[in-house]
Amino acid sequence: MKDHVVVAGDLDAAHLQHPGAGQAAMDELYEQSGDFLAARAFEPKQFAHRIAFNCIPHIDVFLEDGSTKEEWKMVVETKKIMHAPDIEIAATCVRVPVLRCHSEALNVQFAAAVSLEAARSALSSAEGITVLDDPSSATYPMPALLEGTDNVYVGRLRMDPTVENGLQLWCVADQLRKGAALNAVQIAEELLQR
Amino acid sequence: MKDHVVVAGDLDAAHLQHPGAGQAAMDELYEQSGDFLAARAFEPKQFAHRIAFNCIPHIDVFLEDGSTKEEWKMVVETKKIMHAPDIEIAATCVRVPVLRCHSEALNVQFAAAVSLEAARSALSSAEGITVLDDPSSATYPMPALLEGTDNVYVGRLRMDPTVENGLQLWCVADQLRKGAALNAVQIAEELLQR
Repeated sequence: MKDHVVVAGDLDAAHLQHPGAGQAAMDELYEQSGDFLAARAFEPKQFAHRIAFNCIPHIDVFLEDGSTKEEWKMVVETKKIMHAPDIEIAATCVRVPVLRCHSEALNVQFAAAVSLEAARSALSSAEGITVLDDPSSATYPMPALLEGTDNVYVGRLRMDPTVENGLQLWCVADQLRKGAALNAVQIAEELLQR
Repeated sequence: MKDHVVVAGDLDAAHLQHPGAGQAAMDELYEQSGDFLAARAFEPKQFAHRIAFNCIPHIDVFLEDGSTKEEWKMVVETKKIMHAPDIEIAATCVRVPVLRCHSEALNVQFAAAVSLEAARSALSSAEGITVLDDPSSATYPMPALLEGTDNVYVGRLRMDPTVENGLQLWCVADQLRKGAALNAVQIAEELLQR
């Protein structure tokens, strides 16, 4: 059995990833939300549709197989970054009306046996990952609380009983820091230490 | 092989499903969004956390296995409604800042062979379902456009190449009409015709 990930909900902030378009897209979410609340007319510019109080299952361009380029990137970049060309990945990426952070609902099937305790322990001791997972105090990662942070935040850990060695989790990270600028610095630091 | 569904992204509108709390929750999303845009202070009341420009992976109460009751309902209600106790279901439910409609990113594994053409044809001819799936014109279901409609809207149809007989799709429906009142009327009409 191969490792296998379903990212059926990759929820991306309004901040576009095209260089230079980021601030304009955030401004559009701000302004359009204000226009919507005040019942003023508006015209979508940065997105194909209204983003205020909406979810748009369309990020970057569509490819021939019906996937978006963002979904395709989740497949090829995960294989590349993890040096694991055999991982199978299926993703759906959706633009949601938040200002920062990407969120993912992940269903992961491992080749080897997995337990909740082992997964929690591995995640807790991994550099760059913070586990926020205490249902009794309503503690779990959320984009609004994690803007401007440096780690990848993981919570909602559960077994996925529908497959062998299955795990479910929910993770959130600031796409501008861990997802871009900070990560570039961390890679450079890593290279300098070699 | 059993049929198997992963609903890794069930995106629910701010409208709460507890009787009577619906309008108050929508009002909170409206008012909190306005407060946030105007940089005014606010206190979450209907939700455990701020809902404006946020995603909250917590709907209804938490159960002992780490699931929420909303996620548990997706499992048991699907088995019950479809008269298919053997379907395996794993779900993550997330509250998103939209006013109406629930959205789902679905990864479905069928026991029998499936093709995109057969799936599209079956969905197109099914009563109560409308296929909105034309990437070239940016046509796909979205909560903001489908408020107040009666059907279940399906799009983003793709094969899921990571499992045998796998299909991915994205669907949106108005949770107050098809998800509640309209459906009750339709069930009553069905019973009267027997």
